[in-house]
Amino acid sequence: MNGSSAADSSDPSVWISVDAMGGEGGATAIIGGMAMSAAKNPEIGFILHGDENVFGPLLQKKPELSARTRLKAVTKVISMDEKPARALRQGKGTSMWNALESVEQGEATVAVSCGNTGALMALSMLRLRRAPGVDRPAIAVLWPSRNPSGYNVVLDVGADIRADASDLLKFAIMGATYARHGLELKRPRVGLLNVGTEEHKGRSELHDAARMIEEASVTGDFEYIGFVEGSDISSAGVDLVVTDGFAGNIALKTAEGTASLVRELLGNAFNHSPFSKLGALFALTSLRRLQKRIDPRRVNGGVFLGLNGTVIKSHGSADATGVSAAIKLAFKLAKNGFSDRVAARLASDIATGHSGPEEKEPPEANRA
Amino acid sequence: MNGSSAADSSDPSVWISVDAMGGEGGATAIIGGMAMSAAKNPEIGFILHGDENVFGPLLQKKPELSARTRLKAVTKVISMDEKPARALRQGKGTSMWNALESVEQGEATVAVSCGNTGALMALSMLRLRRAPGVDRPAIAVLWPSRNPSGYNVVLDVGADIRADASDLLKFAIMGATYARHGLELKRPRVGLLNVGTEEHKGRSELHDAARMIEEASVTGDFEYIGFVEGSDISSAGVDLVVTDGFAGNIALKTAEGTASLVRELLGNAFNHSPFSKLGALFALTSLRRLQKRIDPRRVNGGVFLGLNGTVIKSHGSADATGVSAAIKLAFKLAKNGFSDRVAARLASDIATGHSGPEEKEPPEANRA
Repeated sequence: MNGSSAADSSDPSVWISVDAMGGEGGATAIIGGMAMSAAKNPEIGFILHGDENVFGPLLQKKPELSARTRLKAVTKVISMDEKPARALRQGKGTSMWNALESVEQGEATVAVSCGNTGALMALSMLRLRRAPGVDRPAIAVLWPSRNPSGYNVVLDVGADIRADASDLLKFAIMGATYARHGLELKRPRVGLLNVGTEEHKGRSELHDAARMIEEASVTGDFEYIGFVEGSDISSAGVDLVVTDGFAGNIALKTAEGTASLVRELLGNAFNHSPFSKLGALFALTSLRRLQKRIDPRRVNGGVFLGLNGTVIKSHGSADATGVSAAIKLAFKLAKNGFSDRVAARLASDIATGHSGPEEKEPPEANRA
Repeated sequence: MNGSSAADSSDPSVWISVDAMGGEGGATAIIGGMAMSAAKNPEIGFILHGDENVFGPLLQKKPELSARTRLKAVTKVISMDEKPARALRQGKGTSMWNALESVEQGEATVAVSCGNTGALMALSMLRLRRAPGVDRPAIAVLWPSRNPSGYNVVLDVGADIRADASDLLKFAIMGATYARHGLELKRPRVGLLNVGTEEHKGRSELHDAARMIEEASVTGDFEYIGFVEGSDISSAGVDLVVTDGFAGNIALKTAEGTASLVRELLGNAFNHSPFSKLGALFALTSLRRLQKRIDPRRVNGGVFLGLNGTVIKSHGSADATGVSAAIKLAFKLAKNGFSDRVAARLASDIATGHSGPEEKEPPEANRA
């Protein structure tokens, strides 16, 4: 339950900082998810930022998990409906703030939070700062697809509602690095989300972005395949879909809503008659496999890209399975030195001048 | 096969003008869909704009359909990848142009086309002109939902990639009229698509639009329920979702892609083993009911709103079932005097001044 006991009983190689207070799933979901991950992976250690009175007793019941968890007591919490601006002013000393500080100070490699997305991004930018060359960080998710890995990468799904051509270029570069490491692809195929695949479609910033991304692909270890449509996000013809946070957020939530409607209608269909119930029984294993494939809890974890450090946003209503999926992703990225690799790619892009004359001047603070 | 023979054998009360040349499904899909609708509904008459050498022989094989179809020979066609600007310059005398002209001249009440969406909207605006008070026409679709009718209305899904607050207000007014007639709802609940339901979320034009729509709801026979997210589009908590054509198009195609992926995975799940195949057999009726519910062909038909006349865009790759669904919708709207009702609503909105000071000045030509 503290650093020394963790060192005594095991030797975690990757420390993950967990904001245990922000989500809707409560302490049970957090501790349950941590315990699931700990049981599967002996390399993970946790720095847990949560209420001692709640998490202390829960950890005592799980000695294995307790042995590699350092509980850092905190009582202040940022609520799910807190505005980002207020979180910035009053966030100091909250579980979210402290979870990010653990990454900033090098105690942990990755932070995981189920809290308020806007506040988490605002505090992440404040504590970890944007990586050199990045104006707007982005949130990337894994999206169920027809590709062999089962997933594509999509970003930005809601870090910011705006993105200009230069931001979209950075999203492509950062997202390609994520696809290389998260999906183990040597040369990800990058598409730019638009209302049609024809070159003349869409707003002018998309045309500028298309040109810039195509240029950067030459040295960027990715392939630019042009505009893609909403129906292509899950296709096997693309690995990474780049868009602004407004369209990306709407696409993501629309897909979640559609999958949930189809699941519900499917359930109704099987419950309709004794015959269909019998059918469901015979097909049970196959249906479970399908359910697993499209279960949003199993791909839980939006990755914040473009910061000096890795932050993972788990779904606010994640249960233990969802929290465990976010921790698994955090471990994978930490193990790969993901944050440094993204930074190296961005630096190389700036060095080769692909950001071009259209790049905005980042704030001075960000250059330092 | 011409006007006199139609009058001889039956007396259609609603004439639908069909552009038979633009789609990818070919003549078989068009004639097949017309025949399906004709068999079900004796009130429909068709004005068919297509190649005489192709459609003449096809009609001869279907005497019932032929008896209430006037074939108007045309050979020029606008291709699926034609740019709207070029379609405007060179569209005269094409099947699409002539199909719209039939509505303009009062020979038909509604036009149906499977052709190029951008060209169809451009030519519709040229031939039918925008309704008074409308800057940007919109495309509305029926979206599978948890509501009793099974559907919600969503607009704009791609008529234009831009929309300001005043355009979004008009979309709400026109869409509410569509929901009243298309879904038979007395007082549709209107939501504005955003990246979150909290009032502070999203771009400033969305905040302006929210205020304007709320004001207009007082006399507009609809209820404004606030911002909705992508996951709410299929919910039972809203009847009409208003958005700009960029986000709406991406949401629509993302939903189509997601539903298609889930269908494919479901098919794979049932084909996996002898047990699952047996399961599928037992659940066959129920699965067919589900398939019917989420089959995009059955809700085929985007309605162009904001023109002096009704135009329905059927999916480019629609088969006979899809074409027939578009014709059914065309009939329903024509029968209701839909176009006049939308115009009356817009006029009443302008009269009560809800468009407010923020409304842009429509072009002079549009006032005439």
